[in-house]
Amino acid sequence: MTASDKKIQFAVIGGGVIGGGWVARFLLMGFDVKVFDPDPETERKINQVIENARRSLPGLFEYLLPDEGSLIFCSTIGEAVSEAQWICEAIPERLNLKYKVFTEIQEHCSKDAIIASSTSGFKPSELQAVSSDPEQIIVAHPFNPVYLIPLVELVGHLKTTEKAAPILTQLGMHPLTVRKEIDAHIADRLLEAVWREGLWLINDDIATTKEIDDAIRYGFGLRWAQMGMFENYRIAGGEEGMAHFIQQFGPALKWPWTKLMDVPELSEELINKIAQQSDQQSGRYSITELEHIRDDNLVAMMRALKTKDWGAGNQLNAMDTSLETTSVKPAEILTQRSPTLTVNRVVPTSWLDVNGHMNDSHYAEVFSKASDIILRRIGSDVNYIARGFSYFTVDMQISYLNECHAGEKISVFTSIHLAEGKKLDLRHEMKNAQGTVCATCTQVLLHVDLNSRKSCPPLEPVASILMALIVPKDILES
Amino acid sequence: MTASDKKIQFAVIGGGVIGGGWVARFLLMGFDVKVFDPDPETERKINQVIENARRSLPGLFEYLLPDEGSLIFCSTIGEAVSEAQWICEAIPERLNLKYKVFTEIQEHCSKDAIIASSTSGFKPSELQAVSSDPEQIIVAHPFNPVYLIPLVELVGHLKTTEKAAPILTQLGMHPLTVRKEIDAHIADRLLEAVWREGLWLINDDIATTKEIDDAIRYGFGLRWAQMGMFENYRIAGGEEGMAHFIQQFGPALKWPWTKLMDVPELSEELINKIAQQSDQQSGRYSITELEHIRDDNLVAMMRALKTKDWGAGNQLNAMDTSLETTSVKPAEILTQRSPTLTVNRVVPTSWLDVNGHMNDSHYAEVFSKASDIILRRIGSDVNYIARGFSYFTVDMQISYLNECHAGEKISVFTSIHLAEGKKLDLRHEMKNAQGTVCATCTQVLLHVDLNSRKSCPPLEPVASILMALIVPKDILES
Repeated sequence: MTASDKKIQFAVIGGGVIGGGWVARFLLMGFDVKVFDPDPETERKINQVIENARRSLPGLFEYLLPDEGSLIFCSTIGEAVSEAQWICEAIPERLNLKYKVFTEIQEHCSKDAIIASSTSGFKPSELQAVSSDPEQIIVAHPFNPVYLIPLVELVGHLKTTEKAAPILTQLGMHPLTVRKEIDAHIADRLLEAVWREGLWLINDDIATTKEIDDAIRYGFGLRWAQMGMFENYRIAGGEEGMAHFIQQFGPALKWPWTKLMDVPELSEELINKIAQQSDQQSGRYSITELEHIRDDNLVAMMRALKTKDWGAGNQLNAMDTSLETTSVKPAEILTQRSPTLTVNRVVPTSWLDVNGHMNDSHYAEVFSKASDIILRRIGSDVNYIARGFSYFTVDMQISYLNECHAGEKISVFTSIHLAEGKKLDLRHEMKNAQGTVCATCTQVLLHVDLNSRKSCPPLEPVASILMALIVPKDILES
Repeated sequence: MTASDKKIQFAVIGGGVIGGGWVARFLLMGFDVKVFDPDPETERKINQVIENARRSLPGLFEYLLPDEGSLIFCSTIGEAVSEAQWICEAIPERLNLKYKVFTEIQEHCSKDAIIASSTSGFKPSELQAVSSDPEQIIVAHPFNPVYLIPLVELVGHLKTTEKAAPILTQLGMHPLTVRKEIDAHIADRLLEAVWREGLWLINDDIATTKEIDDAIRYGFGLRWAQMGMFENYRIAGGEEGMAHFIQQFGPALKWPWTKLMDVPELSEELINKIAQQSDQQSGRYSITELEHIRDDNLVAMMRALKTKDWGAGNQLNAMDTSLETTSVKPAEILTQRSPTLTVNRVVPTSWLDVNGHMNDSHYAEVFSKASDIILRRIGSDVNYIARGFSYFTVDMQISYLNECHAGEKISVFTSIHLAEGKKLDLRHEMKNAQGTVCATCTQVLLHVDLNSRKSCPPLEPVASILMALIVPKDILES
């Protein structure tokens, strides 16, 4: 999205956990949202979800998100949808209710608007059944918490899903277009299979909710968070390949490993058993505490996946690339040595320590990133590194002046104090949103030959860019 | 395990991916292993798995693992098992072959040894059917890669599984005792259900292997890696609780969301389709490359879970606690100011940057951890922080002298240069295994009141411990 694009207007009909999650993501990604829900508690509930999103989502990125959009609670569907280009339906899973709402939406909305249902249970053809403009209605099925989990399953008329996908990408999400409509789309079919199996294991007293959760999170859950199922099995098959793996593993399908035929009856007894086991497993935490733990873990794990640019980490890196140009200028060649904005971001929850503030080591991480931006702007970028040259830090001195907290906005301004031969001397200043200086840093780097791992003078284009830098008076005098 | 315990001897029968994974974990956790496998390629294959383990496993921990155990390849089962206390069976899933091997093992092994089958397909009662000492044979079902994934399902006679569980904990694993034997234990029942559903989705051209994997890893896989299924649904149920969630979600079980009745025929056509889709998804990577990506992601994500002490992160922290006392002395009160060992660890793969070496910011992380150890040893520990007092870093100066690489051992020696009033001045020196100094660091900390966030003199016991420190001559003079 360029600054000249007219901003998409979003509307959300239904303000529960899913609707609220959508609202939070739209807002925090910089878009205006109008909400309709007849429940008088909606505003309170949605604001709670937004609070959760504010403490977790911005920390996923190395750059600042755009300013939050505005949120308006409307008293009619018409008011909410009339100017929207994307209308999100997140009401209860009752088809007659959905028909009523779709009819009212289509009476008031633009012909070009996308009407995106969050349904997990209904196919587009079912949702469209009574509509005069069925192609407008698609499924955009998200996953809780919507403000953090990237996946959205898109199902419906290709013309509409093709228009919808890039909008989801702008929201930092991963649109997965489901090419043939099918009950429960893709992910919920998989989830449903596991859920049923889990219910049987509890019903038959084989395992408790905690034991089942442990079997997942200490085991294959760790694999699935990054590679899914097939890519992991490909590895298990080894050099002999996937076909070999299936031939080995395949026969097990015929073994009586699952309760294929039956669905356990959800008797009061079974429901109570599950509820009690769940209380014993997690009851010492409130739902809000569990949400925070879950979100902090998601932030930490998704950030961890950035290093290998893999799965959700690849998604985040792509978003970083589109965010960085809106604040920092990594692609622009540096022309002067005076302070320039190099970091503009939020403190992630995963950076806190026992003292409840940003750990000292992450100050170094922030300054290190600031240097990376300067290096890119003087021509020492990925291509230059691929040619076998780079800069190594030889000295870093940080003065810690003020604490930083999770969710706090921090900016770094970096100046080149000295650029002479192979030596590069940077001065960083980190400020919070109030303009208070939180830390300063002096960093000395040396230009190196990556093959010999020894220092050497910089090559072109770095040498010329450094030579051409305008030196402001205050740096000369300092 | 205390130093006085006699080390457990391990034997592994069968050196494939799973057997090799066991071997790697036993060795790297410091235990001796004897292996038997008639395949002449075994030694090469196992060494490859050990190489993978060496580059990933040690970096999971904040402390050094014990020295690697010894590995001996044996030419008979008898030779491999005669002195072992734990005999791991990891041969192909053919019951008659297993009977033959168990009989030979039991002819040569100690009556007290645990015979632990890695089987995913057979129940203990099936494995024990022809044995004269059935209670000795249990299932200890691990997950690939065995050297990283913590979960082991333990099934069998309680007397034996109770003896087995603490041994697995020593190996840094998570023993999950399955109380009633059942086909496929717990995790593989869940996996099997998803696998079958996945095969149908491919068979019916609804989704490709990549689309299914994306539906997992951009979606619920991220939730499952930390909380499993039930705890996540508990959150989705909100304050109204788990019973409410089931009543809402339950009816979907009766909907035709899964192919309950049928198993897709594994025709050559379906197998080829899957193999081709998998090639298209992952074919640009070799299996070794995929293994490295998977392992690096696992290391990064599992380390990320340490912050909240959650799931696999809790497992790692527990292992850290047991490892730290064997090298560093965090529980011992510091009595002198001269250099003391504060960090003794390996560089994790997740700490590398574009220059292929440990990123400068992780030097700060290592020195920050070194200070934490000193702080604990002068009485500023978790309890002291809970009383509302702590130390904040005010200045850190790092000199980078040498590069560090993934898997490299690094140690930090820290001395207290000055401890006067609220000021604490630490000097760190980081060395690699060759004794080369990689970096030095001067760190100044101030004692603070966590309520006012202002500096103040230290309280007891910190004040007295600092006062009593013996000051060696060289520090006085420096």
